[in-house]
Amino acid sequence: MHELAHLHFADADASYEDARYAVFGVPYDGTTSFRPGTRFGPRAIREVSFNFESYDPATKIDFSEVPITDLGDLAVSRLPEDLVGQVADVAGDIVRDNKVPVILGGEHTATVGAVRAVRPDVYIVCDAHLDLRDELDGTPYSHGCVTRRVLEAVEDVVVIGARSGDREQFEIAAERTHLYTADTVRERGIGAVLREVREHVAGRRIYLSIDADAIDCCLTPGLGTPEPFGMTPLDIREVVRALAPYAVGFDYVEVAPFDSGQTAAVAAQMVREFIARHWVAGR
Amino acid sequence: MHELAHLHFADADASYEDARYAVFGVPYDGTTSFRPGTRFGPRAIREVSFNFESYDPATKIDFSEVPITDLGDLAVSRLPEDLVGQVADVAGDIVRDNKVPVILGGEHTATVGAVRAVRPDVYIVCDAHLDLRDELDGTPYSHGCVTRRVLEAVEDVVVIGARSGDREQFEIAAERTHLYTADTVRERGIGAVLREVREHVAGRRIYLSIDADAIDCCLTPGLGTPEPFGMTPLDIREVVRALAPYAVGFDYVEVAPFDSGQTAAVAAQMVREFIARHWVAGR
Amino acid sequence: MHELAHLHFADADASYEDARYAVFGVPYDGTTSFRPGTRFGPRAIREVSFNFESYDPATKIDFSEVPITDLGDLAVSRLPEDLVGQVADVAGDIVRDNKVPVILGGEHTATVGAVRAVRPDVYIVCDAHLDLRDELDGTPYSHGCVTRRVLEAVEDVVVIGARSGDREQFEIAAERTHLYTADTVRERGIGAVLREVREHVAGRRIYLSIDADAIDCCLTPGLGTPEPFGMTPLDIREVVRALAPYAVGFDYVEVAPFDSGQTAAVAAQMVREFIARHWVAGR
Amino acid sequence: MHELAHLHFADADASYEDARYAVFGVPYDGTTSFRPGTRFGPRAIREVSFNFESYDPATKIDFSEVPITDLGDLAVSRLPEDLVGQVADVAGDIVRDNKVPVILGGEHTATVGAVRAVRPDVYIVCDAHLDLRDELDGTPYSHGCVTRRVLEAVEDVVVIGARSGDREQFEIAAERTHLYTADTVRERGIGAVLREVREHVAGRRIYLSIDADAIDCCLTPGLGTPEPFGMTPLDIREVVRALAPYAVGFDYVEVAPFDSGQTAAVAAQMVREFIARHWVAGR
Amino acid sequence: MHELAHLHFADADASYEDARYAVFGVPYDGTTSFRPGTRFGPRAIREVSFNFESYDPATKIDFSEVPITDLGDLAVSRLPEDLVGQVADVAGDIVRDNKVPVILGGEHTATVGAVRAVRPDVYIVCDAHLDLRDELDGTPYSHGCVTRRVLEAVEDVVVIGARSGDREQFEIAAERTHLYTADTVRERGIGAVLREVREHVAGRRIYLSIDADAIDCCLTPGLGTPEPFGMTPLDIREVVRALAPYAVGFDYVEVAPFDSGQTAAVAAQMVREFIARHWVAGR
Amino acid sequence: MHELAHLHFADADASYEDARYAVFGVPYDGTTSFRPGTRFGPRAIREVSFNFESYDPATKIDFSEVPITDLGDLAVSRLPEDLVGQVADVAGDIVRDNKVPVILGGEHTATVGAVRAVRPDVYIVCDAHLDLRDELDGTPYSHGCVTRRVLEAVEDVVVIGARSGDREQFEIAAERTHLYTADTVRERGIGAVLREVREHVAGRRIYLSIDADAIDCCLTPGLGTPEPFGMTPLDIREVVRALAPYAVGFDYVEVAPFDSGQTAAVAAQMVREFIARHWVAGR
Ligand SMILES: [Mn+2]
Ligand SMILES: [Mn+2]
Ligand SMILES: [Mn+2]
Ligand SMILES: [Mn+2]
Ligand SMILES: [Mn+2]
Ligand SMILES: [Mn+2]
Ligand SMILES: [Mn+2]
Ligand SMILES: [Mn+2]
Ligand SMILES: [Mn+2]
Ligand SMILES: [Mn+2]
Ligand SMILES: [Mn+2]
Ligand SMILES: [Mn+2]
Repeated sequence: MHELAHLHFADADASYEDARYAVFGVPYDGTTSFRPGTRFGPRAIREVSFNFESYDPATKIDFSEVPITDLGDLAVSRLPEDLVGQVADVAGDIVRDNKVPVILGGEHTATVGAVRAVRPDVYIVCDAHLDLRDELDGTPYSHGCVTRRVLEAVEDVVVIGARSGDREQFEIAAERTHLYTADTVRERGIGAVLREVREHVAGRRIYLSIDADAIDCCLTPGLGTPEPFGMTPLDIREVVRALAPYAVGFDYVEVAPFDSGQTAAVAAQMVREFIARHWVAGR
Repeated sequence: MHELAHLHFADADASYEDARYAVFGVPYDGTTSFRPGTRFGPRAIREVSFNFESYDPATKIDFSEVPITDLGDLAVSRLPEDLVGQVADVAGDIVRDNKVPVILGGEHTATVGAVRAVRPDVYIVCDAHLDLRDELDGTPYSHGCVTRRVLEAVEDVVVIGARSGDREQFEIAAERTHLYTADTVRERGIGAVLREVREHVAGRRIYLSIDADAIDCCLTPGLGTPEPFGMTPLDIREVVRALAPYAVGFDYVEVAPFDSGQTAAVAAQMVREFIARHWVAGR
Repeated sequence: MHELAHLHFADADASYEDARYAVFGVPYDGTTSFRPGTRFGPRAIREVSFNFESYDPATKIDFSEVPITDLGDLAVSRLPEDLVGQVADVAGDIVRDNKVPVILGGEHTATVGAVRAVRPDVYIVCDAHLDLRDELDGTPYSHGCVTRRVLEAVEDVVVIGARSGDREQFEIAAERTHLYTADTVRERGIGAVLREVREHVAGRRIYLSIDADAIDCCLTPGLGTPEPFGMTPLDIREVVRALAPYAVGFDYVEVAPFDSGQTAAVAAQMVREFIARHWVAGR
Repeated sequence: MHELAHLHFADADASYEDARYAVFGVPYDGTTSFRPGTRFGPRAIREVSFNFESYDPATKIDFSEVPITDLGDLAVSRLPEDLVGQVADVAGDIVRDNKVPVILGGEHTATVGAVRAVRPDVYIVCDAHLDLRDELDGTPYSHGCVTRRVLEAVEDVVVIGARSGDREQFEIAAERTHLYTADTVRERGIGAVLREVREHVAGRRIYLSIDADAIDCCLTPGLGTPEPFGMTPLDIREVVRALAPYAVGFDYVEVAPFDSGQTAAVAAQMVREFIARHWVAGR
Repeated sequence: MHELAHLHFADADASYEDARYAVFGVPYDGTTSFRPGTRFGPRAIREVSFNFESYDPATKIDFSEVPITDLGDLAVSRLPEDLVGQVADVAGDIVRDNKVPVILGGEHTATVGAVRAVRPDVYIVCDAHLDLRDELDGTPYSHGCVTRRVLEAVEDVVVIGARSGDREQFEIAAERTHLYTADTVRERGIGAVLREVREHVAGRRIYLSIDADAIDCCLTPGLGTPEPFGMTPLDIREVVRALAPYAVGFDYVEVAPFDSGQTAAVAAQMVREFIARHWVAGR
Repeated sequence: MHELAHLHFADADASYEDARYAVFGVPYDGTTSFRPGTRFGPRAIREVSFNFESYDPATKIDFSEVPITDLGDLAVSRLPEDLVGQVADVAGDIVRDNKVPVILGGEHTATVGAVRAVRPDVYIVCDAHLDLRDELDGTPYSHGCVTRRVLEAVEDVVVIGARSGDREQFEIAAERTHLYTADTVRERGIGAVLREVREHVAGRRIYLSIDADAIDCCLTPGLGTPEPFGMTPLDIREVVRALAPYAVGFDYVEVAPFDSGQTAAVAAQMVREFIARHWVAGR
């Protein structure tokens, strides 16, 4: 019979048993303060994943030869704390099965659950926002509190690309994180920043989280909380290339696909880049 | 100096003190299950209100001669229970000041707060959905639980235009509400239905809530939870004309302005119709 | 060589010399008060005209057999008074050449020029608005003054479908026009209204102007000044069928194509209907 | 573990083995002449299917209790003739397995394959277009040739809602089909038409195909080839209710989801209506 | 009672009396030649202003601590000359009250009025266009004549980022302005350009006008007259940082918010940047 | 009489006889695999061409003084092979009449026909994709096979900006083309690349084809098959400036105008740049 398929991430055709990478979506935007719609992010990323060739010329791998599975989307709760628990459960199962969780967001909130499951040595996040509030709009599990919650589980936190936060958050960032602002990245160059970060990581297990708004909203405007004066997609590609080899978990979150598709296109390419670089490093 | 103004409902130029009608917006869509965006409803309704002449040829009143004020939008909490409390507070103040609250939604959830403040004898709602769940997505204050929550405060409930609910909700509707489904309205005619409703009301104080999705989504598609096979804008106009004279509170909710403006245009016209008919009746 | 063509109204392939119908567009929206964009109307109407078969099953004519030309779009002035003059010049030339001008709008303002050129015995307009202001936003040639300006050139004016105007305009309408409001059309039926209008016309030369907002904005939302509770496309089709035989000029204006194409689709079909019914009657 | 799922038609949770109804999508728009995009139709219909309650109040069935499976989307060929073969293969397998194929389009072209597989006694189609060309744009498998191709496999053809075709097509329709134009439906009423059709069917096996453009484009504008002056969603509901009991195959095609979701919403409801009425009749 | 507010620029919460900065919008697009819609610019800029934190990490000020007021939108005339007069009146009052006018556009035309009121020593404008026509589309107050009109009131004019004009305008620019084209900015670097401009200004009173189309339309496409090959948002930030301390008036105009929000986001950030840098310099 | 015109490329006002440049559109997207819509590209490019001044400050030419004609759009066949033949016929006529064909796409497929007609010594293409498949989706004339087909007619092929293809295509590219990937362009600089290319061309006759997706989809997202990490509009401008003097044919293809207009704006500017540089070089 002819090929029939449900929407999934392209080339994620392995069985769960065989898979090294387990993709799943978290279509949740319950705490979004400015513009809702990141719930449609996972779908948009999967759709555009079929726009690309299965071959990656830089690593010379073909994704059809890499064991990837796509579990689909989580049936999300509306309450942020419950959502964090759901993600922790799924990611925990994946990790226990010795696979790498790859999350498509949705709000950044999902990351808190993933980090709780993965328990990395270092948490590295690209984000326009510090996400260091202790509470926002009545919940400690808001998208604006993600890095703050992560700090309760992981001591070593690196933030790259931030350019938004209140006075208190910048103080916390200075004290408790390694912060490379977007201006710093622009001035020093992402290469120099990454050399420093890689030295700092020193081969330890990291969790890598990319909040899509780390990238300048003039380049990828499909965002819930857009910020100009940010990083470039090329910067993010460098981050993923440099750090994927050390990662035990990965997410690309905060895609609100209300643009012409470019934000999801970059997201899908970064998911591919992550898998390619991790796979090549691990062989 | 030349006229300068912030966005407000057209002709709502009275001071709060002088006003008989106090409009406010509740830009909340925190529990929306299908498609978020009703948070942009109040803004869209205000914008299109300037598309219309200030004169209403049917009642021969000019809205510039009616004492209306627009208080602006509520700074909403993300938690549905808190939101209900906020609306109850604002609506309560308005009622105590002997004015009629006119709410622009936002999710239907706001209505629960308004009804708690207004304490009507009869609650009359036009809605595609029964909204009779006891809980949805982890909260009893979901947009899918509105009529259920109202039943805890008001014994006499009339539902017009419903066509969606699960088996249990239809049973509750049969037992505890006066239900006129959309098919019933179509078959018997809105005139016949309203004659019956008006007799039932018998001059008592009502709260009138219009969920924009009562109208067929093929006519007004700017909705969070669109349903075809519904009422017409003309049906809704008849409802408002017939019942406004008895109302002590009014809301028009669930406008998600992702269409060409027609859903907000109908909403703005129904707000005007409500005020015109209430004002004329009360003179 | 293969067929190459610029965008034009479908089947308007006759030379100017041979043509009985001369279509032209007036992409002007300089006085629009609510939502600009009718300048894109002529283009949208031409585009969708290619969506339809060249055959009209009701009259059994094929438009490829009718001598129609499309002159393209006018290079419009920004000043409304100048625009009126431009349209009058072009329409005047067409009339002098013994052809029927068929105008695609653009704002209603263009109609003033066309009427001045055509000098009909009776002016019949379908419009949600009375357009009877003497001045609006500082100009007597605003889209809101069209019928008022026409009254200076034509004594006999019939307005069908109106539902918006201020107190003064309704008074003028009562005194100086034959007004059939949208509610009247709904209550009496368009057939009854048209029998009366046709008797009144009594075979005299008419100019027929359709402001797209005569139709309910829930059915055709691509409008600069949308109004609900209006006429239906079927009503308008009846108007065109009944009156085209007596027309010496025709326009379809106020299409602002910011919907899914339905407003322009109805416009293109009404242009075809006009030509078909006029042609059949004239043979 | 928490629920994870790929996009599918809501409640189509049965295994293929257990299923009575086998849904699949044909995301093909290769011959579309006016406006491409029906390839996104199946996805839009599935998405909005989650907007609805699983309960159908008219038949009192809950779809979660009906054995439905969703096979996903076909990996379509670009060549129309190949596409027809692919659909015929898939539908053939479903029919041989004693299930009812339910197709989500995509272009109408898919229907030719389904009919070849199903071999019904009578083919009943709702469509704005006669689709009786022998060839269009160089292929006999264009969306404009569907009914013509069907006539080669099924002698008894009923067309409901048509209003577009050229002179030759209307002649063929008169000779070889039972044609109820949209105007006929409006004048005689869909009830009267369906009584006649049901008598004609006389309990024989039918294939029911709904081209979404049978419905007036002012009500459901998300179409590849929109036509005004059409049927209503209520008319289509009557068709499905009346004829589903006799159907051995069903499709809902030509949804191009570039509107506010209403066209897909009606489609999803009609798929549900078909299944509910067929299931109830078959018990 | 809970917080209720009309749409305003975020943190512009001071009373007019207390304010140092008086924001107002000019929702006018009456002379736009290509694509209308800048009338929606002020609203979009205000909306996205709530997307940002009230804290500015570069200057370490919190906007809630700066005395800003937002007067709302001007009720604009349709005639460009009248509009200029209206803006001159409002800006004149603000200047006389010893405050800094901050204008949100709308078309560039508003700037003519502001400059007439402010009477700066030097006029500095970032613009893709020379705006040096003496007349366009029949009016000397077109958006294409702004710099020409300004030259009648201010002798010293600096143009940065231009890349569009006819032969005559480039001649006038060479003779009567200090012109830094977009190519010049790219080649020499904005830093070098600004050093020269600052020297030229020499501490005199400037009016700073940013036409949003100075920025490359590939980065901020929400424009009435988009031009590629332009400046970057970072260039504009440098301009504002360097020149705000000398400014006695500021505007950000020509935002036509038909993109994904990025053009308005940059505009809102530049309004904040202007206020922050001016405030810090003035303390 | 006042100026009336059909949609055409701005300033393409010469007669065919007088013209040196013959523009025509190929509104074809029949083999598009990801996202259809390039059929609307020619129209969008023509529309935005009127956004620009007729003067080009870099070459100091005014396009109204250059003999350009616009033949309109081709009435395209649906079958890709036929389409290639149609384009070859039209381009062949133009070349035989000693004019330069300038094609507005539409899919890249059109280029195959143009190259067959023009028979250049060297084919130079900017494209994100290698387009070196021998067949795709059942046809050798797919948009994914363009460079492969060209290689059958032209031995000397230069590809600039590519970043997508499968393993086999990269092997063919290495063997049979001069490939400068997007990464190469970024690393070496477009200037260095073009010096090399110009040397290679050595004054021979070239055909220059720009696939709009050569540019990074974050800068111009209106594309059928968007790819990030690409060239910039400035790179493309350098390519056109450097190579136009040697060109005997030119196309700008694959514009799918579903963005805010920036992709078509760049396309229109590049068509102008091509004509200006070719004209200046040829004088
Ligand atoms: Mn974040
Ligand atoms: Mn963020
Ligand atoms: Mn409700
Ligand atoms: Mn509802
Ligand atoms: Mn009018
Ligand atoms: Mn009107
Ligand atoms: Mn069909
Ligand atoms: Mn059809
Ligand atoms: Mn300007
Ligand atoms: Mn400009
Ligand atoms: Mn290509
Ligand atoms: Mn390409």
